[in-house]
Amino acid sequence: MVKLVLLRHGESTANKSNVYTGWNDVGLTAKGREQAESAGNLINQITDFKPTQIHTSVLTRAIVTANIVADICHFLYLPLTKTWRLNERHYGKLRGINKDESRKIFGKKQVLEWRRGFYAVPPWGEKVTSRRYASCDIHLLPRAESLYQTQKRVLPYYQDNVATRLKMGEDQLIVAHGSSLRALIKKLEHINDHDIIKLEVPNAEPIVYTFDQQLKIIDKKILRSF
Amino acid sequence: MVKLVLLRHGESTANKSNVYTGWNDVGLTAKGREQAESAGNLINQITDFKPTQIHTSVLTRAIVTANIVADICHFLYLPLTKTWRLNERHYGKLRGINKDESRKIFGKKQVLEWRRGFYAVPPWGEKVTSRRYASCDIHLLPRAESLYQTQKRVLPYYQDNVATRLKMGEDQLIVAHGSSLRALIKKLEHINDHDIIKLEVPNAEPIVYTFDQQLKIIDKKILRSF
Repeated sequence: MVKLVLLRHGESTANKSNVYTGWNDVGLTAKGREQAESAGNLINQITDFKPTQIHTSVLTRAIVTANIVADICHFLYLPLTKTWRLNERHYGKLRGINKDESRKIFGKKQVLEWRRGFYAVPPWGEKVTSRRYASCDIHLLPRAESLYQTQKRVLPYYQDNVATRLKMGEDQLIVAHGSSLRALIKKLEHINDHDIIKLEVPNAEPIVYTFDQQLKIIDKKILRSF
Repeated sequence: MVKLVLLRHGESTANKSNVYTGWNDVGLTAKGREQAESAGNLINQITDFKPTQIHTSVLTRAIVTANIVADICHFLYLPLTKTWRLNERHYGKLRGINKDESRKIFGKKQVLEWRRGFYAVPPWGEKVTSRRYASCDIHLLPRAESLYQTQKRVLPYYQDNVATRLKMGEDQLIVAHGSSLRALIKKLEHINDHDIIKLEVPNAEPIVYTFDQQLKIIDKKILRSF
């Protein structure tokens, strides 16, 4: 038996102000840091969880959450891989816009479709130019994504870098984002295109999967500190 | 031209209590965290320093320093490699002993030799058993080291993972320890076996090397905030 823990970052400044963020890089709020600490304490209590690697995105809110958790769990020394493939869904032109505001600009029905449709792609934003992505092939980087497209870039990373280690009996920890985790969970739990959109992944609540040797799910627990 | 920045971690609890530490894992003091922040601000002011990778040891005091610096310099997203090869010198049986106390136990002359002799090895300590080193070949891990032996395991990492990137024009940042940095500096600056022992590497003062394309040193600066 082997364990995979998924964790969404703590509250970010954008979560707090209800803004579409995606690939915008925002920090944690004070509450977000506390949530990360609580998540660390919860993970620390899983006595048979001995990860060999931590995986996160290249976005600060996830990296800082991962570092806080690693510190509390006394495994700061573990390899921590940062990849754009675990980034939040890219919201294209919605980036930086308040969610209420977006409905005024694009219409309620259209925004609902972008949020609820598994294949719906928001309007493209500008090309990614940040140094953060300097080592990536620019042609791979999206300018807006559906949840389906998000899943298509998350899964290769999961298959090559996480599942292979789980197969070898090595526990793994992924610290990522609402939609990149939703995309992964869809695959892990065989959730259909319709139901996945209703799945909420709250900030900083560790989701603990226990797999058998064939990576079949034996158990799933969501840890909460309240 | 390309830049390499070397940084010793901020003050640790062991620095404060004047204890031989080496591979013991200790945290930073509050002062140590502040020093790391100051170092981050100094590094942030090197306008033409654009590292592509950060390298550190598997010891918490160095990792936390690296994370604080990366946060302040807005490059948390950079790959951060943690390797035992950048660990502090292994002090063997001296580990955990106060420096004054050590002179009472082993004699002033003997302790001076262990500290000042480039080839002097302190008495062996116990075998390393921590999970921290689970992925390493146990036969590679020391039970005590001279500065010479420290250098022998630091250099392969430097040559393969740092110098190769510098050669490609990529700036690099190493956050490590007094003696592992001293061992590296000895090589970089061709310092002889006698003089190296006098070289002090203070906590959290960035050492900035500028190299030409053949990795010949063009400039060296030590940054201080006071």
